[in-house]
Amino acid sequence: MILMNKVGIIGVGHVGSAAAHEIVVRGLCHHLVLIDDRDAKAKAECLDLKDMGAQTLSHTKISAQDYSLLSDADVVIFSTGAVDRQGPDRMQELNWTKQTVYDAIPKLMATGFNGVIVSITNPCDVIAALIQKVSGLPKNRVFGTGTSLDTARMKRVLSQTFNVNPKNIGGYVLGEHGDSQFTAWSTVSVAGIPLAEYPGTADLDLAQLTKEISAGGWAVHSGKGYTCYGISSCVSNIVKAILTDEVGAFPVSTYSDRYDTYIGRPAYIAGSGVVKPLPLNLTIDERTQLDQSAAKIRKSFLENAVVQAAQ
Amino acid sequence: MILMNKVGIIGVGHVGSAAAHEIVVRGLCHHLVLIDDRDAKAKAECLDLKDMGAQTLSHTKISAQDYSLLSDADVVIFSTGAVDRQGPDRMQELNWTKQTVYDAIPKLMATGFNGVIVSITNPCDVIAALIQKVSGLPKNRVFGTGTSLDTARMKRVLSQTFNVNPKNIGGYVLGEHGDSQFTAWSTVSVAGIPLAEYPGTADLDLAQLTKEISAGGWAVHSGKGYTCYGISSCVSNIVKAILTDEVGAFPVSTYSDRYDTYIGRPAYIAGSGVVKPLPLNLTIDERTQLDQSAAKIRKSFLENAVVQAAQ
Amino acid sequence: MILMNKVGIIGVGHVGSAAAHEIVVRGLCHHLVLIDDRDAKAKAECLDLKDMGAQTLSHTKISAQDYSLLSDADVVIFSTGAVDRQGPDRMQELNWTKQTVYDAIPKLMATGFNGVIVSITNPCDVIAALIQKVSGLPKNRVFGTGTSLDTARMKRVLSQTFNVNPKNIGGYVLGEHGDSQFTAWSTVSVAGIPLAEYPGTADLDLAQLTKEISAGGWAVHSGKGYTCYGISSCVSNIVKAILTDEVGAFPVSTYSDRYDTYIGRPAYIAGSGVVKPLPLNLTIDERTQLDQSAAKIRKSFLENAVVQAAQ
Amino acid sequence: MILMNKVGIIGVGHVGSAAAHEIVVRGLCHHLVLIDDRDAKAKAECLDLKDMGAQTLSHTKISAQDYSLLSDADVVIFSTGAVDRQGPDRMQELNWTKQTVYDAIPKLMATGFNGVIVSITNPCDVIAALIQKVSGLPKNRVFGTGTSLDTARMKRVLSQTFNVNPKNIGGYVLGEHGDSQFTAWSTVSVAGIPLAEYPGTADLDLAQLTKEISAGGWAVHSGKGYTCYGISSCVSNIVKAILTDEVGAFPVSTYSDRYDTYIGRPAYIAGSGVVKPLPLNLTIDERTQLDQSAAKIRKSFLENAVVQAAQ
Repeated sequence: MILMNKVGIIGVGHVGSAAAHEIVVRGLCHHLVLIDDRDAKAKAECLDLKDMGAQTLSHTKISAQDYSLLSDADVVIFSTGAVDRQGPDRMQELNWTKQTVYDAIPKLMATGFNGVIVSITNPCDVIAALIQKVSGLPKNRVFGTGTSLDTARMKRVLSQTFNVNPKNIGGYVLGEHGDSQFTAWSTVSVAGIPLAEYPGTADLDLAQLTKEISAGGWAVHSGKGYTCYGISSCVSNIVKAILTDEVGAFPVSTYSDRYDTYIGRPAYIAGSGVVKPLPLNLTIDERTQLDQSAAKIRKSFLENAVVQAAQ
Repeated sequence: MILMNKVGIIGVGHVGSAAAHEIVVRGLCHHLVLIDDRDAKAKAECLDLKDMGAQTLSHTKISAQDYSLLSDADVVIFSTGAVDRQGPDRMQELNWTKQTVYDAIPKLMATGFNGVIVSITNPCDVIAALIQKVSGLPKNRVFGTGTSLDTARMKRVLSQTFNVNPKNIGGYVLGEHGDSQFTAWSTVSVAGIPLAEYPGTADLDLAQLTKEISAGGWAVHSGKGYTCYGISSCVSNIVKAILTDEVGAFPVSTYSDRYDTYIGRPAYIAGSGVVKPLPLNLTIDERTQLDQSAAKIRKSFLENAVVQAAQ
Repeated sequence: MILMNKVGIIGVGHVGSAAAHEIVVRGLCHHLVLIDDRDAKAKAECLDLKDMGAQTLSHTKISAQDYSLLSDADVVIFSTGAVDRQGPDRMQELNWTKQTVYDAIPKLMATGFNGVIVSITNPCDVIAALIQKVSGLPKNRVFGTGTSLDTARMKRVLSQTFNVNPKNIGGYVLGEHGDSQFTAWSTVSVAGIPLAEYPGTADLDLAQLTKEISAGGWAVHSGKGYTCYGISSCVSNIVKAILTDEVGAFPVSTYSDRYDTYIGRPAYIAGSGVVKPLPLNLTIDERTQLDQSAAKIRKSFLENAVVQAAQ
Repeated sequence: MILMNKVGIIGVGHVGSAAAHEIVVRGLCHHLVLIDDRDAKAKAECLDLKDMGAQTLSHTKISAQDYSLLSDADVVIFSTGAVDRQGPDRMQELNWTKQTVYDAIPKLMATGFNGVIVSITNPCDVIAALIQKVSGLPKNRVFGTGTSLDTARMKRVLSQTFNVNPKNIGGYVLGEHGDSQFTAWSTVSVAGIPLAEYPGTADLDLAQLTKEISAGGWAVHSGKGYTCYGISSCVSNIVKAILTDEVGAFPVSTYSDRYDTYIGRPAYIAGSGVVKPLPLNLTIDERTQLDQSAAKIRKSFLENAVVQAAQ
């Protein structure tokens, strides 16, 4: 019997279920396991996805609510959410979402799980760090989606600015998946040409673009109450990078020795998780912004998460 | 400039937005236009989908809230919903959803739209009929998803029964997309072998299977409040059949001369919509069930929809 | 480190390399290993496929000429060919192609390979049987593509006859992948409707259709010297069925207890290879044709292959 | 009836038929038309591709040898080849391949064709220029695949050097698709980081890498007699960029005002062909190399192609 690619999703709210849908549509794995503390919800999502079975291009086995199936999973997406309970800052979600870590991760680890965990749950950087602590997995095997979605939004805004395909925009948003994030403009390129050298960029109002990039997130939130499709495509591509041992660069929240914290910055992702960070040459200003963002994340982690972990 | 495939979606609630997501993931069309009477919702879905732009495998242009863009659309999906307002029977949704037809379809037709309309809105058969009346489009160019999802569920249940892939189950659920629907067992096959000839079928409890098939829908509904992924895959495949001029068979709600009503039964779908019905050889019992289902749909249409159309 | 799906191809002539191309385009596996007795040819195909790496939708690692990489392969496609050496009957290729079995299969088994072998090499049924003998693998884990391509051609011809999509034609060509094959008309259906019940079939000239089906093969052969794309799509779908544990029905050449020979007939394919045959209800005529085809294959195997195997 | 995406391929040798295969596998267009001066060959390729019809994920109509079907084609791939007649330099193929332009392009234009022509035929730059002259189409609507494949090879070599995914290598090979081409190292990046800033690049032997890049092409040629898969993936992505109006950057052979010749350099491709060149900031050395490559192409065109065109 062959060993099939297996992906688990813990937390099938708006984001987890959209990711499940995209994974099934794209046929990214062979067995998908859904887990949620709302039993009827998880089973309903499972059944709804199974109803796709006669229509998909690829066959995917789908199961629900059985942690034991995760013992040999290659990847687990952690996407517990707190839409109804969340305040104006992602850090405020922490009180609720960290409880989901304390609840779910020990159950996951008790199965003997030895794969990679990709966390979407907010506050993304703190929760990714907490999952690593609670799971005891090596740091390279636990990371967050970090600034993936923020980077996607930066590419959308610049693609409109230059009237080119968003896939032709390079570069990274760095730092916290939250208010202290920033676009590292020195890394941004258009069709491979550094932004600073691209015609017309002298007229660019970077402060205005920055506003547009973050405004996008709030526009989606206020219009539909949550975001799900942008992040679904980000995490699906990350899962694919793991399953195919891609060694591809993604702006994820991963542990930094320098800052002793998880923080969003590009890293190469492959079958074993994060295989190496990217050697960015930031400007002094960007480095300062990254320092500040790291300090904010670390402080929040120390004040909130570690104390709880010790309980 | 080339003529791109363009698809519109009127109504981006749970179903419409899941279909939009799947269409973008699969790259089924080149331009997708979203319309909803909730302006902020439509624009939020558009922005959320645009945030996928740097991550997708194919490029899709996405627009929102501009009916004029539908003038040269190939297909419009009609998926206005009434989740919060709906009672225990799909027919009860009619009072609300028919208003969405009176509101949206004249705006669509005013653009000069001359493509195919695929309606998902419930009650599916009555609304599809109403859209045809209000739009004035030829009957072959307006149809509903009908018993597509019910057929998908039948295939899921039988694939579990026989432990084979759901794509290897053939056959059709017929009639109303509602309580009077039924599985035409004489059309069901397993890997091409008629169900009656397949080993082990003597022991099958068809009444029990029938219950399981319809129970699935309610399980999804009660567990997550709505269904979206099964139907999203059905309508995506139908849209693909139109865009690629596939001449493929789908159990859709289409006009029947015999019954003078729209009703779910297999028909060939191609670039111009329904190109021909399938010549089913039903048993006498199945024919009676179809007669009754047709009568129920026609009665509902005459009592509710036509009167309104005449106002 | 995750376990990646690995597929090997032994023999990268016209068919093997087209299959490799399709597998890479579709991203069906994560690691593809090419083997050929022409060292430069295998390495050239490998390099040509690697040049796709920056353009594909999915990442595939590609290697060449290293049998040891097949030790943990999930599937090996056996596609050694004899285009320049072959006469007018596929059985005449046997003298050459059986030597490729004696050469390659012991090398494959020496690696500890424990997956599934799918053979395309002609004469398909005899070679599949020989590979099973020489490899010593369980019979369910070695099978040939059998009448897959012949069935594909039957579907093409009938789709033209009825002006419907070929995916809407059901049914199977049975027997030898060679002159004694036949379309089992009793299994053929159009959009799920048995051929005999479909309107217009009274006028069908089945003998003429049969001629058209087999003429197709020769037309391709005489026009381009070989066939590769039809069979490439067949074997790619079979490989996908194995890798995703699909339990899907395919007309493959598999061992029959009744006939004590390999022969083309539908069987369910999953992760462990052939999991069960399909319970066909053939007509008496069809059964006789199958008996004769089986006798022909068995005779050829006994006269040619077994003797050699005993050497 | 909807307007389907239609692609024509003139010349279905090794490259044209591999591209046809990939286009059908990926479902990039809805109608594919094959043309070749070898009638039996074109019809055989058509039939072989049609035999895929029951196995593909998407429906594609395929036709052969009917120029009139190209009247409303969106894209025509020009891929007449001269494998058996070609000498050691691509310029020597010109005598044969230019005749195929004089033969085929007037037939194409006589249909009223008004789409985009993408030429692969060698010598790529001269033939693209000649096609533009003979067709009389606007310059933006005729271009060659140029240094697409050379760029793909550069990415393969650098991905091996840095052990990262080839999709993470940026940059362009410029100039003639032939001996005077060169990698513009100033444009090369790894995961968005300029090559010069990437750790370890001080030790890189660029001359050695350059050798490896061009050696790849010859290794494929000598091992299998031609190359087809790398170029097939390049042209398929270009065709997709046209059909989806992508505005994506590709290193194609397009007309340069500065040089008054076609030459390989990155340009944005969309529905109307080349929509704008990329504003590269080359080093002085790179600019000199580009000047020399342009002079070589222009000289060859003036000496060979234009004279013939005037006959």
